[in-house]
Amino acid sequence: MNIAMIIYLLGSLMEVEAALMLFPAAIGLGYGEKSAYAFLVIAAAEALLGFLIIRKKPRKNTFFAREGFVTTALSWILLSAVGALPFYVTRQIPMYLDALFETVSGFTTTGASILNNVEALDKCMLFWRSFSHWIGGMGVLVFMMAILPLSGAGGQKLFLLRAESPGPSVDKLSPKIRITALWLYGIYVVLTILCFIFQLIGGMDAFSAICLSFGAAGTGGFGVLNSSFASYSPFCKWSCTVFMLLFGINFNVYYLLIMRRFKDAFKMEEVRWYLIIYFFAVFTILLNLYRYSHLFTEADVVDAFFSVSSIMTTTGYATKDFNLWPNYSRIILVIIMFSGACAGSTGGGIKISRLIILVKSVGKELKRMLQPRTVKHVFLDNKDVDHATIMNTLAYIVIYLMIFIISLLLVATDGYDTTTSFSAVAATFNNIGPGLNIVGPTGNYASFTWLSKIVLIFDMLAGRLEIYPLIFLMMPGSWKKVSLTRSSK
Amino acid sequence: MNIAMIIYLLGSLMEVEAALMLFPAAIGLGYGEKSAYAFLVIAAAEALLGFLIIRKKPRKNTFFAREGFVTTALSWILLSAVGALPFYVTRQIPMYLDALFETVSGFTTTGASILNNVEALDKCMLFWRSFSHWIGGMGVLVFMMAILPLSGAGGQKLFLLRAESPGPSVDKLSPKIRITALWLYGIYVVLTILCFIFQLIGGMDAFSAICLSFGAAGTGGFGVLNSSFASYSPFCKWSCTVFMLLFGINFNVYYLLIMRRFKDAFKMEEVRWYLIIYFFAVFTILLNLYRYSHLFTEADVVDAFFSVSSIMTTTGYATKDFNLWPNYSRIILVIIMFSGACAGSTGGGIKISRLIILVKSVGKELKRMLQPRTVKHVFLDNKDVDHATIMNTLAYIVIYLMIFIISLLLVATDGYDTTTSFSAVAATFNNIGPGLNIVGPTGNYASFTWLSKIVLIFDMLAGRLEIYPLIFLMMPGSWKKVSLTRSSK
Repeated sequence: MNIAMIIYLLGSLMEVEAALMLFPAAIGLGYGEKSAYAFLVIAAAEALLGFLIIRKKPRKNTFFAREGFVTTALSWILLSAVGALPFYVTRQIPMYLDALFETVSGFTTTGASILNNVEALDKCMLFWRSFSHWIGGMGVLVFMMAILPLSGAGGQKLFLLRAESPGPSVDKLSPKIRITALWLYGIYVVLTILCFIFQLIGGMDAFSAICLSFGAAGTGGFGVLNSSFASYSPFCKWSCTVFMLLFGINFNVYYLLIMRRFKDAFKMEEVRWYLIIYFFAVFTILLNLYRYSHLFTEADVVDAFFSVSSIMTTTGYATKDFNLWPNYSRIILVIIMFSGACAGSTGGGIKISRLIILVKSVGKELKRMLQPRTVKHVFLDNKDVDHATIMNTLAYIVIYLMIFIISLLLVATDGYDTTTSFSAVAATFNNIGPGLNIVGPTGNYASFTWLSKIVLIFDMLAGRLEIYPLIFLMMPGSWKKVSLTRSSK
Repeated sequence: MNIAMIIYLLGSLMEVEAALMLFPAAIGLGYGEKSAYAFLVIAAAEALLGFLIIRKKPRKNTFFAREGFVTTALSWILLSAVGALPFYVTRQIPMYLDALFETVSGFTTTGASILNNVEALDKCMLFWRSFSHWIGGMGVLVFMMAILPLSGAGGQKLFLLRAESPGPSVDKLSPKIRITALWLYGIYVVLTILCFIFQLIGGMDAFSAICLSFGAAGTGGFGVLNSSFASYSPFCKWSCTVFMLLFGINFNVYYLLIMRRFKDAFKMEEVRWYLIIYFFAVFTILLNLYRYSHLFTEADVVDAFFSVSSIMTTTGYATKDFNLWPNYSRIILVIIMFSGACAGSTGGGIKISRLIILVKSVGKELKRMLQPRTVKHVFLDNKDVDHATIMNTLAYIVIYLMIFIISLLLVATDGYDTTTSFSAVAATFNNIGPGLNIVGPTGNYASFTWLSKIVLIFDMLAGRLEIYPLIFLMMPGSWKKVSLTRSSK
């Protein structure tokens, strides 16, 4: 394990985070808030520490998959640990664990909150919460690679990019990693600005529009009002519905559209199934609401379209307490929490492309059982999915379920009802935010014990980083093997 | 598809079922019940019809995996459809769908009931319910092969045995299928008789002891009292706890013990993990009960040991309404509903050996990600698990989850609470019986709509037959391909 290189990269990351903290500081100073100085002081300290680290360049340049995973995991932990400090030192969130929960929830684009009263926060704190969604949505290491002229042969970049946004298609866009990262961020910025403009047109004030656009872009879900998205105009709700859906689409589609490869863009199976599942969920929820509610109004239609978009893209904004919906609607929301959005988007969950590969693998296996001697293939977008990808996808589901069950058991010791425990884990692990019952849209995660909060923090990180970086960080094997090699030298 | 052979086998099965119906008829006549004649009339009709079918032997002997799956699925459907008639024609269960639900629940060893008042049934009906557990537990086709001198090269036998009890190890016992089947039934009968004797010693009346021993042996769960197992003596409860556990163990262990291959018997990983999970669940539930209950008594200890044994082996007897237990205990019961018992036992669920293979496959995949060039193996009982088995196991989990989710959505349209819908599907698909809330130990499945009942009937059959037979029955591919071959001849 090239520990010197890992530390060096963490130092670089500290510089980046320090720079990012200047934004909330500026907002706070603009609004004349004392808490803005917390950002300045912490940013200065972090920048200084980072500078001391990166002064010494690592001698060895070796960087493999394991270094990529471990660096990614440590980066996100460091980012959150420092990012939580402004909340804590200003006493806006008095307990450090709560501040950490809120910050991890921000960077992982979850949007699960421990705050009973969001509106009591300073503007700069609200901005930092939403800004962290935006940073975490596309991935902070992607950002770092886009702006920093890192030394080395690009090995770091490739492995970091893979570990941070593991959709199988990201590195296909362009052979040059840095150009890829720039493209992705370019599309991201433009879409965010468009979302912001549409919210302004809908009559939202500029500050809310910025924060909520950050949340929609990163598929985060932190709002600036206790009522989340309920009090905004129907125009804002409809446009946000569309933008959340857009941010849940594989960004390759936009790249292909820009490159005028329309045929390739429209042929993507993942996007097709993403939309089919979306409209199926909306349509059946509307039927379900129509059957069970005495007064079915236009608002119900808006709420259904908005809520499904919000949950499926793993954003988590709410226009309506869907916790009060009838059983079928509640259950389908929980199910699309798991499906999640497309790979290569800012959304979380298992990802549609994985589900497609799973279903097709099952079909292949069924055919093999009937005709053992014929060779069958799994195709995605007319391309043959290789065996390693299939195995990896199947293994991912199993490890995903294992973490889910262990988390559920630990969180269940808090003694809440079954639905609360289950949906709390589902809503954090899939990076949505609100679940059902106590953690529903009108509730929050404040009342959980410290054990549950730590478990849910782990789940949020595991969900955003697609599990492997955290597993390898904790697995002795990823550290041991190399120290053996080293001592034998 | 060799349809003539399938019909012939179904005809043989009808003879077997007609013969089995003579047992409840005899019980009913002994108790002087009028309803006993229903069994006699239906048995006579079935035997006659079966006789007409098997008079004509099929010319072709070809029999492959697809014929095995389809025959198995049709056998179980036929068995249940006819087995439901005595309930229906005697008006003991006035609706045919309910009678079918109860009978499928019996044969699949689920034990989920639509009866509000079990005690209102005639003795012969109670006996038939419990007897169906015992028949279904070991598998009716296994039984048929043990007693009938079927013509042909044993191809049918092998494929039927595989399709009906797909634990990967059944056919390893002995190269001769018929001898294997006889051994399995021999062990089964002896253990059942021992269970019966222990219940008698515990003070249970003979009729209840027979019925409840059938239920324990098949890991079914139908009782003869509305209070299930609660009113019997502690000795009965403890001995039933042990016997349920014994019936949940891979029967190969008993075979190996009889053959004095003690070392092989005790080295079985599946059994080790089965017991580890069992004691972990009991121990943590006791801690959980101790923490949350004001009065922790010896009865709680009995209830914990009994309930975990009952749920994990997918039996479903209850000494206590575990629906009232605190959250952690409820959730761990739901989780062990899924794990289930050992492969090659009479229990249902996903099976411990599958879980072991899954966890080991994940470990292999993680190592491969760190060191792509090394070849890793998965071992079970020191034997290399081949790649096809791993793929099959992974595919099984995926298809299992797909059926679970579709069932959940359909059942959710009934509008009950989330926990009821979820646990109803979990308790039927894994062949347990009681779930939580409305379908808890003191509740039943009577109030579900016809749609939900049909879905749950499907789930019970899919759970018992481990999905594939029902899938292949419905998959056009398994019928089409062969009719093409036939027409081309």
